Amino acid sequence: MKFVAHIDVMPQKEILDPQGKAVQLGLHNLGVQAVSDVRIGKHITVALEAASESEANAQVEEACRKLLANLIMEDYSFRLEQV
Amino acid sequence: MKFVAHIDVMPQKEILDPQGKAVQLGLHNLGVQAVSDVRIGKHITVALEAASESEANAQVEEACRKLLANLIMEDYSFRLEQV
Repeated sequence: MKFVAHIDVMPQKEILDPQGKAVQLGLHNLGVQAVSDVRIGKHITVALEAASESEANAQVEEACRKLLANLIMEDYSFRLEQV
Repeated sequence: MKFVAHIDVMPQKEILDPQGKAVQLGLHNLGVQAVSDVRIGKHITVALEAASESEANAQVEEACRKLLANLIMEDYSFRLEQV
């Protein structure tokens, strides 16, 4: 079975996000005033083959924990889409 | 009405993604063999206030076009969540 995993890696709530702050200021300066609490992380798409959805789940979990997310500062979430 | 917009900004399909290639190689080296076609973009969350969902939609569109995405090299998509 072939899957595509859509993974989001975001800075944890308690962590300051200076990049997000800068973008928020930029949006205000460009006239988009109503925005607040801008946070910026990574969006990663991965194609993978696995025997079952639970195996695919386990592989994506492993990839996130081993490489994609820094669990000290970041949280990850993902959804699998069968293709 | 308060919304949170979840925005994904990804390199266009035709554009090479060296960061994704490097991560794919890293995953293979770490023993996650079944992955391919890794692509890396940005995930941005924005809180915003708007009178209606369509107004919120228009504001997020404007933010994406003006600042968040480089439309020459990137595509964006987003979903709105009412909070």
